Amino acid sequence: MAEAKKADEMFKEFKEHSISEFFKKNKQMLGYAGMVRSLVTVIHEYVTNSLDACEEAGILPFINIRISNIGENKYSVAVSDNGPGIPKKYIGKALATILAGTKFHRYMQQRGQQGIGASGCTLFSQMTTGKQIKVKSVTGNAERYSCSISIDTVQNKPVISDYKDIEESSTGLSIEAEFATVKYENSDHGVYEYLKRTALANPHTEIRFVDPDNKEYTFIRAVDEIPKRPKPTKPHPLGISVNDLIEFAHKSESRKISGFLEDTFARVSSAKVNELGALTGLDMKKDPRKLEWDDAERMVKGFKQVKWVAPETSIISPIGEDQIRVAMKNILNPDFINVVERKPSVFYGGIPFVVEAAISFGGNSGKKLGDEEYSGSILRFANRVPLLFDSGSCAITQAVRSIQWKRYGIDIENQPVSVFVNVSSVYIPYSGVGKEAIASTDEIIDEIKLALMDAARGMQRYIRGKQQFNVETNKYKTIMRYAKRLSKDLNELTSEEETSIEKSISTLVARHYPKATEKGETDGQPEEEADQSGK
Amino acid sequence: MAEAKKADEMFKEFKEHSISEFFKKNKQMLGYAGMVRSLVTVIHEYVTNSLDACEEAGILPFINIRISNIGENKYSVAVSDNGPGIPKKYIGKALATILAGTKFHRYMQQRGQQGIGASGCTLFSQMTTGKQIKVKSVTGNAERYSCSISIDTVQNKPVISDYKDIEESSTGLSIEAEFATVKYENSDHGVYEYLKRTALANPHTEIRFVDPDNKEYTFIRAVDEIPKRPKPTKPHPLGISVNDLIEFAHKSESRKISGFLEDTFARVSSAKVNELGALTGLDMKKDPRKLEWDDAERMVKGFKQVKWVAPETSIISPIGEDQIRVAMKNILNPDFINVVERKPSVFYGGIPFVVEAAISFGGNSGKKLGDEEYSGSILRFANRVPLLFDSGSCAITQAVRSIQWKRYGIDIENQPVSVFVNVSSVYIPYSGVGKEAIASTDEIIDEIKLALMDAARGMQRYIRGKQQFNVETNKYKTIMRYAKRLSKDLNELTSEEETSIEKSISTLVARHYPKATEKGETDGQPEEEADQSGK
Repeated sequence: MAEAKKADEMFKEFKEHSISEFFKKNKQMLGYAGMVRSLVTVIHEYVTNSLDACEEAGILPFINIRISNIGENKYSVAVSDNGPGIPKKYIGKALATILAGTKFHRYMQQRGQQGIGASGCTLFSQMTTGKQIKVKSVTGNAERYSCSISIDTVQNKPVISDYKDIEESSTGLSIEAEFATVKYENSDHGVYEYLKRTALANPHTEIRFVDPDNKEYTFIRAVDEIPKRPKPTKPHPLGISVNDLIEFAHKSESRKISGFLEDTFARVSSAKVNELGALTGLDMKKDPRKLEWDDAERMVKGFKQVKWVAPETSIISPIGEDQIRVAMKNILNPDFINVVERKPSVFYGGIPFVVEAAISFGGNSGKKLGDEEYSGSILRFANRVPLLFDSGSCAITQAVRSIQWKRYGIDIENQPVSVFVNVSSVYIPYSGVGKEAIASTDEIIDEIKLALMDAARGMQRYIRGKQQFNVETNKYKTIMRYAKRLSKDLNELTSEEETSIEKSISTLVARHYPKATEKGETDGQPEEEADQSGK
Repeated sequence: MAEAKKADEMFKEFKEHSISEFFKKNKQMLGYAGMVRSLVTVIHEYVTNSLDACEEAGILPFINIRISNIGENKYSVAVSDNGPGIPKKYIGKALATILAGTKFHRYMQQRGQQGIGASGCTLFSQMTTGKQIKVKSVTGNAERYSCSISIDTVQNKPVISDYKDIEESSTGLSIEAEFATVKYENSDHGVYEYLKRTALANPHTEIRFVDPDNKEYTFIRAVDEIPKRPKPTKPHPLGISVNDLIEFAHKSESRKISGFLEDTFARVSSAKVNELGALTGLDMKKDPRKLEWDDAERMVKGFKQVKWVAPETSIISPIGEDQIRVAMKNILNPDFINVVERKPSVFYGGIPFVVEAAISFGGNSGKKLGDEEYSGSILRFANRVPLLFDSGSCAITQAVRSIQWKRYGIDIENQPVSVFVNVSSVYIPYSGVGKEAIASTDEIIDEIKLALMDAARGMQRYIRGKQQFNVETNKYKTIMRYAKRLSKDLNELTSEEETSIEKSISTLVARHYPKATEKGETDGQPEEEADQSGK
């Protein structure tokens, strides 16, 4: 047995670390695990930032991406957008300070919500290539400059060099960076798939992509309308924990609790304040900065007893049924789609969210495994951002798996089916910093299930129609094979002309199997029907 | 279309945030998602810290845990150990500063490796109850005090109050904290199961646990030996990235690259330095603080060409075959166990790790679903710490699922089988901050697979023996049913005594089915055999 080591000695090595150092050591937590995934993570961070910036500035996004192979497992990535650019004053912090940004503290639906992503790319680039990233920015305020940026990881502070004025005319941000230990792969988990899905959930966006083989792809804008900008809003009382309430109260500039409640939270009127006062017995004229835990706890209990108007729904901007349908037709070209948008719901008591689900069948839906061999695929999205990894631990996957698809006539293992789910919210409870999966949250899983069952019901009608159609087609084909033979035999017996006999028989048979012979119309019908039911 | 919003306006709200604020908002990333899981996370953080501290101090761990229900979804948790305590000077930082500690920067196998866990508990306690945690510490240096601690989340700094001297005699740390939005549940994912598995992987530990119903459980120490303390070590050249090399070089106190390499890395002799110099053409007399990326890149390439002695294995402390066998017999009481310990291997090129795997059959192995209905269960561990959540995305689960168990005669879906895997390493690449799953790392998955296949082969022999035994038993039983009838008939025909005839027939039959009649010995034999093969 070793001699007992004293605590003093053990703690000699005690140190504090910066968040940059932490993620430098644990880069897999940011999504930098595996060479293919690491490259997708880079594209994901840049593209989501561009989309958020364009939409916030009221610009229809146009994003250009080029990936070039510059060595073994080494690539250069260039992403440029037509967004508002980043002012000189903030460029270092926006791209080279982990946990800094405009998004973390806002109560507003956005793709990014952490202030980590783009700085994580800078960190990953310098860790793997030793290089700074190169940035060009032109803002609406006519700041036009380029510079090179890296992170001082010990301080979590930007290091900027090479500031230059440039001669670009249109606004936007352009980033060029090199990455090693990454790999471009044209697979289900690759960059191309990521961009395809981004286009699917963002039909208002135009994306041009040049891959390492110099092949150019364009995902054309399908809708000329910027998504309704979700408004920043106040939190709903039902989503507030005691701890939140105290923090808000202690920062309040109101002199009374009553004013504080009305100013800070959505749906709190002076009538509600009176109701709360009567219910909790708390003095609503007290200074909010002196609110203590027990009183705050009573207040939060009161929140749960009062009848509230539901959270505002204008703060959430789902994709929209029509837009999903247009985008899926555009990209998957399916035989059938059913789209369902649920009403806004709330989780953790008061954070509103909206689930959209769509099921498509045929065309490029699902995964093609071989000739006539398919499997279904799940397209997961959070605030329109595709989630490509960690599917096993995601609330969307859990909901999809819990559905008894067979009851709806859907064989999700073996049919060309795509299941599309998008969860929109002011706050998505991601399970990890890499934002690749939505944490198992009962309310969210339940809503996804309801949306899927709704969508599946519409699908069922179509599939039944299709199966009936198949049965008829098969019978028809079988009979027609006999008819051919019969015509020949009859011809020998009656010396009537073979083709003429065959024609008469065909007409006779066709009359009994109308669906098998009028393919076009029959195919269309259940779709219309189901489309209606999905609304 | 909204009017274009200028970048300046958008960036007005730019802010920086502390890591405490980040985890306060994203507590699910620390494992605080779901009420049952949140309580397990608390126990997990305190128990791993206690075990690490005891072992580092050379003390056989004895841990006392009490969980009491103090309100609706509100519990008080008390954890005390016989470890070395924490000096006054460090207590605030150790328990109330995220990313501070002794573990993050050490190159040494430990359970904790982040400097987040215990401070995360403090944060979660104050967020859900508004209270400080209560701490008592007695160090070997005879500091005896109690105090209350919370975190100033904006600053990520401790807030300490109520320092008092106390009269405790033996060293150790004791923490009492309250938590809300948590729930005690006696399930597969609950605290009891967590502690049972902790005992399984730490047979040198004694754990006493009082549950909310005041029921007391003791997991008795099965082995009176502190695990061989893994030595802090130097990194192996093969595990070094260019970026690491430069950082080490720039911090070096050596005047020449040659000295720097010998001092900083394991297995670098002056002969190796000469070899590297010849191979890379680099001047080994240069100042390491002036090492630049291109030269460092050449050096790292050189590292990969030189033939190295493998990383030291004394830096890894696996549980050990005998200890796993003792612990599994103790806790699962199986009919059969096969344990395999692989030789140390490396991942990411140079980080050594060891995989241990065991398969047990019968007794309390697997999960009992009903009468004679079972399913297999996977017991995942990293550095002896049980991993209870996020199993889907874990390298261990992926490896287990990739094995074709049927080939080994094992029906993992329907048999009472437990598959035990422990990965030990100086650095475990966890997929998230909550440390609940090992990221998919090819080298690690491959090693786990090899260990499992090895263990399964031994198992196969046992199961075949068992099946053969079953076949014989069934035949024997069938024949004996007839024998009984035959004796009766013969008795009528020959008037010889029935029992005497039955006895003769039995002896005759038994001679043909020896295994079916000598249960005890036959059962033992394949176990011994397989045990040998596992070594």
